[in-house]
Amino acid sequence: MSDIGVTVKKDADFSEWYTEVVQKAGMAEYSPIKGCMIIREHAYAIWEKIQEVFNRKIKETGHSNVYFPMFIPESFLKKESEHFAGFIPEVAWITEGGNTPLEEKLAIRPTSETIMYATFSKWIRSWRDLPVKINQWCNIVRWETKATKPFLRTREFLWQEGHTAHATAEEAEKEVMYALDEYRDLVENYLAIPILVGKKSDSEKFAGALYTTAMESMMPDGKALQMGTSHNLGQNFAKVFDIKFIGEDEKDHYVWQTSWGITTRLIGAVIMVHGDDKGLILPPKVAPVQVVIVPIPYKGAEPAAIAAKAKELFATLKQKGIAVVLDDREEYTPGWKFHQWELKGVPIRIEIGPRDLQQQQVMMARRDTGEKLAVKETDMLVTVETLLTEIQHNLYAKARVDLENKITTVQNYEEFQNVLKTKGGFIKAAWCGSATCEERIKEETSATIRVIPFDKEEPSTGCVHCGGKAREMVYFAKSY
Amino acid sequence: MSDIGVTVKKDADFSEWYTEVVQKAGMAEYSPIKGCMIIREHAYAIWEKIQEVFNRKIKETGHSNVYFPMFIPESFLKKESEHFAGFIPEVAWITEGGNTPLEEKLAIRPTSETIMYATFSKWIRSWRDLPVKINQWCNIVRWETKATKPFLRTREFLWQEGHTAHATAEEAEKEVMYALDEYRDLVENYLAIPILVGKKSDSEKFAGALYTTAMESMMPDGKALQMGTSHNLGQNFAKVFDIKFIGEDEKDHYVWQTSWGITTRLIGAVIMVHGDDKGLILPPKVAPVQVVIVPIPYKGAEPAAIAAKAKELFATLKQKGIAVVLDDREEYTPGWKFHQWELKGVPIRIEIGPRDLQQQQVMMARRDTGEKLAVKETDMLVTVETLLTEIQHNLYAKARVDLENKITTVQNYEEFQNVLKTKGGFIKAAWCGSATCEERIKEETSATIRVIPFDKEEPSTGCVHCGGKAREMVYFAKSY
Repeated sequence: MSDIGVTVKKDADFSEWYTEVVQKAGMAEYSPIKGCMIIREHAYAIWEKIQEVFNRKIKETGHSNVYFPMFIPESFLKKESEHFAGFIPEVAWITEGGNTPLEEKLAIRPTSETIMYATFSKWIRSWRDLPVKINQWCNIVRWETKATKPFLRTREFLWQEGHTAHATAEEAEKEVMYALDEYRDLVENYLAIPILVGKKSDSEKFAGALYTTAMESMMPDGKALQMGTSHNLGQNFAKVFDIKFIGEDEKDHYVWQTSWGITTRLIGAVIMVHGDDKGLILPPKVAPVQVVIVPIPYKGAEPAAIAAKAKELFATLKQKGIAVVLDDREEYTPGWKFHQWELKGVPIRIEIGPRDLQQQQVMMARRDTGEKLAVKETDMLVTVETLLTEIQHNLYAKARVDLENKITTVQNYEEFQNVLKTKGGFIKAAWCGSATCEERIKEETSATIRVIPFDKEEPSTGCVHCGGKAREMVYFAKSY
Repeated sequence: MSDIGVTVKKDADFSEWYTEVVQKAGMAEYSPIKGCMIIREHAYAIWEKIQEVFNRKIKETGHSNVYFPMFIPESFLKKESEHFAGFIPEVAWITEGGNTPLEEKLAIRPTSETIMYATFSKWIRSWRDLPVKINQWCNIVRWETKATKPFLRTREFLWQEGHTAHATAEEAEKEVMYALDEYRDLVENYLAIPILVGKKSDSEKFAGALYTTAMESMMPDGKALQMGTSHNLGQNFAKVFDIKFIGEDEKDHYVWQTSWGITTRLIGAVIMVHGDDKGLILPPKVAPVQVVIVPIPYKGAEPAAIAAKAKELFATLKQKGIAVVLDDREEYTPGWKFHQWELKGVPIRIEIGPRDLQQQQVMMARRDTGEKLAVKETDMLVTVETLLTEIQHNLYAKARVDLENKITTVQNYEEFQNVLKTKGGFIKAAWCGSATCEERIKEETSATIRVIPFDKEEPSTGCVHCGGKAREMVYFAKSY
């Protein structure tokens, strides 16, 4: 059994536990290319669920999907100087095509602002052409020099990038918050992961943005994980790429822009936040398999009748749109199957054996609590539906408690450093607003400001670093 | 009006017509990167329909989606020598990452056999691990030196690539035909494009395959377009990448493999085959917008009542799952809207004006035939449903006639050359089976063998080129 089960406890060695679960549950595989991963069936199916949910949301609000080339000429990247400085250290370059050196080397997109906005200037002429609201699902390359980790940091990953252009600053501001709200709904209500939201400090914002908003979650090892960002680009790119429109006032104006993205990193968060010593635990709303049925045939005990009943249950659930698998493979034992489906995080397991058949019942096992219950056949469907909802809520509630336990408000820098060393998590502290204090704290503790809450909270002390007049309370943490 | 309408007749200058329709209908845009295109909203939505249909098919039959890195080390590509020779002239190379030259240069995938199969050897140990049936949707790069054309030939494009491994040759053979059959269903019954299917000749097969099957369609300019291919890879790659399994006989065996793909080129075929002088005509089953409602308000004639009725019709159709748009923009005239939605190929337009309101009817216009009909409000929904089916069938039937008119059986090489010059299309001719004759014909006429029918047809003459004993009848054509 050990070759399929997880051999490390989550509490004992979190990093090793993660690596094992990722591989053994069929989520990802290390690839022959350094720093790249293979996204396997089970993880890709979760990504497809995320795409389905998010596409539905943004299409309802008038966004359309498109696809832009992944090649970006060096000269484009250079146009916005902050943007260029931010991305240049981690760009992969194509220098040969066919057997010929290229005249200008091409970056593989680290993000698509520059290639897209060079075209926006062709599309946008008049206020009638606004807003432009597009999105693309694609691969992204950032040539990481830090250690990589499947889903969390790889040289190639998948993401969604929304890009919009508006006639007014107010509209752009609204769009920034719209995207962040949809992200929050996706992450909290589908992935069952609680988050903190707010603005990034100037030193942590997107290169080229006016400001960046973000959602941050907390991992069991006390490190924060950035789950998605939504940027207000102001008119920075519009001025560089000359994206102007004639307004209703018949005058020329630069557009106001936003961009926002979430990545396959979300899958890593699901693994880390919900998993346990047996492997994954998947939130029902994004689980590729929500229910697995395992028939338990005993010799001489009507195997045909059990098989038929299992098929009947399968049909009932499938017909209701529940993602159900009937695992009636003969080459594996029921015990082996239990372990495998637990490893894969399937929310509900249904067992049907000779005694169940006789008593017109099934056994159900909840993956989140391990609880087992005998359910009358006639109540099977309604119980599954209820349990799926309950498990979804339970996972969120549990993670919420974990998050709240990992937020500590500190009064001074000594406490700050102590908490960081012993407990980790988010540290809520007063900050004077100076980049110097922020930078020092980062150097001295490797914690950064993860979010500045939208609703300014009056500080109770002076700045946690310099002791000077504090501007507001912010959340610090070490992060992935 | 002329800036939004198509200015070239399809018959007069097909190539220019295509270029105009592609851009004006919002399908694609030339990008700042030579040989690359931007896939715009309207075309990407068709691609999403294709994905939806094809994903449903392959998932029902046990295939799963995955994502492999797009980087392929040069050494991997080189492992299968035919494969390498086939792809190497059109590979784009990454030679720098961050600011550092790479130790081994990396190809951007021109196809993923080598990177995937290097991993298959890790996944497959026993007959219990078979079959492996995976698929990926991704971007592909082939550094074309020929002239590019949006959708038909670009340096980067999107595709789906299925890859399977089986225990027996028979199973692999079945899978090759399975994929081809699903492609045929997709192309004929959704895109409404009739095709010829069959095998490729050895010189036209996929580099590294045992044999290649393909579907070919005919464009209005008499050139064939390859719509998708399904390859039997035999054990070629298995031997090179050492993909072995222990069989039920407890002995070692190499797996049998297949791969198959369709690309965004299909969108180009839809444009070419169905479009007319007014722009696109989209088959209802893949049209992003199936019905557009245009209210026609006259001054003083109850504009509010017309608007309300239009909204009611919209709700009725939407509720039935029909992709409907209510175009009630005030900044455009009804005439402008008619032209725009015709350009975009929307199958049905519904107009509602004061007279219609009074008579409790709407006007419907079919995009395919131009026919207009007055429909009672109470019959609106059922008429839309009937028309959508009719238009779908009509487009296919029309294209079928076009295809059949463009197949000419020839008796000798003079006739072959004449037909090619004057009429183009598919030329059905007897072939001796020799690569030399095939090559000569290509050199002399630029026509190639597009497909060799699965059901061998006895030749009525000697080989169309050498006059020697013919093996079978095959289809030649010039092609995109």
